Amino acid sequence: MTRYTAPTQDIQYLLHDVLDVANDPTPGYAELEPDFTSAVLEEAGKIAGEVLHPLNAVGDQEGCVLENGVVRPPKGFKEAFDQVREGGWTALDLPEQYGGQNMPYLLGTAVGEMFSGANQAFTMYQGLTHGAASAILVHGTDQQKDTYLPKMFSCDWTGTMNLTEPHCGTDLGLMRSKAVPQDDGSYAISGQKIFISAGEHDMAENIIHLVLAKIPGGPEGIKGVSLFIVPKFLVKEDGSLGERNGVKCSKIEEKMGIHGNSTCVMDYDGAKGWLLGEEHKGMRAMFTMMNEARIGVGMQGLAQAEVAYQNALDYARDRLQGRSVTGVENPDGPADPLIVHPDIRRNLLDQKSFIEGARAFLLWGAQMIDRAERGKDEAAHGMVSLLTPVIKGFLTDEGYDMTVQAQQVYGGHGYIEETGMSQFTRDARIAMIYEGANGVQALDLVGRKLAQDGGKHVMAFFDLVKGFIKEAGTDGAMAEFTEPLKSASKDLQSAGMFFMQNGMKNPNAALAGSYDFMHLFGHVCLGLMWGRMAEASLKALAEGRGDANFHETKLATARFYMTRRLPATKLHLARIESGADPVMALDADRF
Amino acid sequence: MTRYTAPTQDIQYLLHDVLDVANDPTPGYAELEPDFTSAVLEEAGKIAGEVLHPLNAVGDQEGCVLENGVVRPPKGFKEAFDQVREGGWTALDLPEQYGGQNMPYLLGTAVGEMFSGANQAFTMYQGLTHGAASAILVHGTDQQKDTYLPKMFSCDWTGTMNLTEPHCGTDLGLMRSKAVPQDDGSYAISGQKIFISAGEHDMAENIIHLVLAKIPGGPEGIKGVSLFIVPKFLVKEDGSLGERNGVKCSKIEEKMGIHGNSTCVMDYDGAKGWLLGEEHKGMRAMFTMMNEARIGVGMQGLAQAEVAYQNALDYARDRLQGRSVTGVENPDGPADPLIVHPDIRRNLLDQKSFIEGARAFLLWGAQMIDRAERGKDEAAHGMVSLLTPVIKGFLTDEGYDMTVQAQQVYGGHGYIEETGMSQFTRDARIAMIYEGANGVQALDLVGRKLAQDGGKHVMAFFDLVKGFIKEAGTDGAMAEFTEPLKSASKDLQSAGMFFMQNGMKNPNAALAGSYDFMHLFGHVCLGLMWGRMAEASLKALAEGRGDANFHETKLATARFYMTRRLPATKLHLARIESGADPVMALDADRF
Repeated sequence: MTRYTAPTQDIQYLLHDVLDVANDPTPGYAELEPDFTSAVLEEAGKIAGEVLHPLNAVGDQEGCVLENGVVRPPKGFKEAFDQVREGGWTALDLPEQYGGQNMPYLLGTAVGEMFSGANQAFTMYQGLTHGAASAILVHGTDQQKDTYLPKMFSCDWTGTMNLTEPHCGTDLGLMRSKAVPQDDGSYAISGQKIFISAGEHDMAENIIHLVLAKIPGGPEGIKGVSLFIVPKFLVKEDGSLGERNGVKCSKIEEKMGIHGNSTCVMDYDGAKGWLLGEEHKGMRAMFTMMNEARIGVGMQGLAQAEVAYQNALDYARDRLQGRSVTGVENPDGPADPLIVHPDIRRNLLDQKSFIEGARAFLLWGAQMIDRAERGKDEAAHGMVSLLTPVIKGFLTDEGYDMTVQAQQVYGGHGYIEETGMSQFTRDARIAMIYEGANGVQALDLVGRKLAQDGGKHVMAFFDLVKGFIKEAGTDGAMAEFTEPLKSASKDLQSAGMFFMQNGMKNPNAALAGSYDFMHLFGHVCLGLMWGRMAEASLKALAEGRGDANFHETKLATARFYMTRRLPATKLHLARIESGADPVMALDADRF
Repeated sequence: MTRYTAPTQDIQYLLHDVLDVANDPTPGYAELEPDFTSAVLEEAGKIAGEVLHPLNAVGDQEGCVLENGVVRPPKGFKEAFDQVREGGWTALDLPEQYGGQNMPYLLGTAVGEMFSGANQAFTMYQGLTHGAASAILVHGTDQQKDTYLPKMFSCDWTGTMNLTEPHCGTDLGLMRSKAVPQDDGSYAISGQKIFISAGEHDMAENIIHLVLAKIPGGPEGIKGVSLFIVPKFLVKEDGSLGERNGVKCSKIEEKMGIHGNSTCVMDYDGAKGWLLGEEHKGMRAMFTMMNEARIGVGMQGLAQAEVAYQNALDYARDRLQGRSVTGVENPDGPADPLIVHPDIRRNLLDQKSFIEGARAFLLWGAQMIDRAERGKDEAAHGMVSLLTPVIKGFLTDEGYDMTVQAQQVYGGHGYIEETGMSQFTRDARIAMIYEGANGVQALDLVGRKLAQDGGKHVMAFFDLVKGFIKEAGTDGAMAEFTEPLKSASKDLQSAGMFFMQNGMKNPNAALAGSYDFMHLFGHVCLGLMWGRMAEASLKALAEGRGDANFHETKLATARFYMTRRLPATKLHLARIESGADPVMALDADRF
């Protein structure tokens, strides 16, 4: 039996002490008073811990069953989904016009971490709907919005995203699905889509599929791809449901994890669909959603690390094994708890310092999305666009590694499914893959984002770090935090410089270092976050404000990150500076 | 459908070009002529690829079933086990006296890698038997040897090791199982043991359990533990099987992987057992086996990385996705194969350079075991004792990471069980845990092995590296390999120095860095191996000997390791030199 306790105190600290949301002029932020956010987070935390998490292991064990075209999610999912709907949790950060609560994306993200940490497979049903609804919101006609959004915001209807086909995932230009125009203005969609999360289930009255397909006669490759709305049941003029559309789930995939979510093969056989956005501009419509979707996946990496850490920590405190090397600490017991052992602490602190740094990074990213979208702040838009592949790639890679470390604390018991530690790693694994595998994130970062708008966003990032260091100071109490950050940031600049000097002549010199660059960048971001948290906690302590224990723990964890994790930037830089040759030397047939 | 192709050419190269076994005076090595080893390896490779690997996915999907006290392994396992027995593969490196073939442990290890890579869960039935038989060989009376060994060598009877109890794994002093002396010289064994691999199954006529238990009235804690032979069926004087003993499997554990191996809860209820070795010296008897068992687990880490790599490589060559950034490479196809992309190559070369370096390290370790045991070479014994936790910990951590990287090459398809890539990671995961979790390996290395015999083994290791660098030279063609090795070795020495200077005052200063030290040490060992391989291949090329393509590929892979992997030593050193404070600062209740 695992537990999930929502990290409410930490999120409150980040919102108010670190991100200082009350003083952020972004529209909608004024209402983010501590009492208000606390109430929302407490309530969400209860749902997460008491409703969603108890179904996490059930979902893993039962999985989804396809019978006569109907997919049955695990026992209890339907009832829990009703509770989430009734609590109004499905459209927290979506506009009021269609039934949302219009709260900032920042708050939606904080709640999202809780739900996702408590039960990732379950939360995906809602997450995919959010993504599909957002796409309709941005690209739909008024009629489409009126028809679909109210029901999708409430999750009475859920949504899906259909991109992948058996022979193409990343390279969607190879797509074969067809959309043939019909006389009534609709399209007949045919083709097979795979890996469709929440593609079929019986927890909603209708499922609204967003499907990429090619209109015959359009441009070749990726430029000829359009996006369509294909409902499972056609919607009549009065909004009631009509006949079943020509789309069905032909198979549920057996996966390594997230068994509670139905991953479907979807067959479209002349299904009726309506163009969403412009003809042949389907990828652009998808890309609008990409930042949010990728940040959402980064969040999953963090969320699984959090729940795994909580349970590893409990075990490390409870399990008696061996004695402390510096003297017995539990004289009344037959042995000391695991947590006395330095290497167990090293393991736990790797996790803790990642998780808290990652949460700060994630929420900072969400704040920038709000500034970009609600505040129309172009600089914030550029920055979050630059950082999105870092949030996605770094947080999911590291998040996964941390679930593995958490599992390791349990020794042999971690390998037994009964303890639930294996599920956390198996569920976390997918986040490194979907929404663009992490290698693709690295390519996006180095191949596109770095040079975007003349490189001004990456320069803005360096200025931001420099500005923080200058303002926080490199002497006094902040020195132990700002000095390592300065050094790490210099490594990142050197790597960028290496790419500029070598990537022009030989793009492979940059791309061979792309994965390391993504991680280097991630460490600098977490270093910056730990710097900001150290500053906030030093200030709180100086002012005698808040929970001193909490702030001292933050400082100790910041020290751990600075001394034990941040030096990784030098390794990544060394790998990057070795350039293309070591990677490109071998012919493909000599691997 | 996955494939497994035994790495015969690479092993032949290591045995003859690198380890130069023909000129090794160790008893039994004279027969290791290239033709002979090639014949053995080819034959073993056939069994691995054609008999064992086709059952790998079957084993994962079917698992083992406990019904009425009988455990049924997956379909086909029994027949394959018969084939392995008939081929004489069960006692390759065990003495002829009891039916073994008396080949060096080195060759047994090379074959072991193949079997384990092809099907780890299957090969464990044989591996556990080998371990138990070895224990009886060293500690048994003549009568015990005559009774059990011939049948165990042939795997007509299999063996198990029973250490763990529900409340104790690493800390076996907490053990509760009891062995009460009986009038006939036997003992009545009672208690529960968990995580017993191959604890029950129907593939052998009998199962010989080696069980740790306490004789009442003996010393407290670990000093009062004795080892017992407890057969499933009692053996009559004439060697035929008598009545069922008081031991049964009460449960099969649901695990993350190695489903084809039955992991049993074993209940001993007054079972008849016989002391193996001396009273209260059970741990010593177990420790005799420890080096071999741990090296065997290190081998599993490498083996799973190898099979995962082979399949990732196939996929990278076959799957068409995207175009090379430097120009189309597959103009006749709709896209280029994945392997044109620099980051896919980086991923594959991480794997390849680890695998080949690890194989060299493993076989070098096995050669030292032969020198220690067959050649009574004390220095070799000390060295392999020092390196054992490195082989176990480093090879299984890295091996696991490499299976994850291999899975990543497949994108979404890697997450679907159908492709088999998930199984490689799930199977590889256990090797980081059993035979002493890797944190315990690090503790063994830093807390015991470093200082053993006045630190002379670690000094011998440094001398060995220094000697190699001196002999190979730091200029000319070897410079690009010896310079990085020199630098990495210096990092290892600095870390050892840090421990010496700080660990006396505060043992936590050393133990907080133990995990990093294990990895630092592992990288230096692989660096040394790549240095030796580079030297061997340069020599072969200069002499126009062998397959020039093969040797040039080795050199390119060596370059990759030196530039892309070995710099990790600096990160580990930085973490080590941050000392105890970052790790020990927090009270347990403030994590």
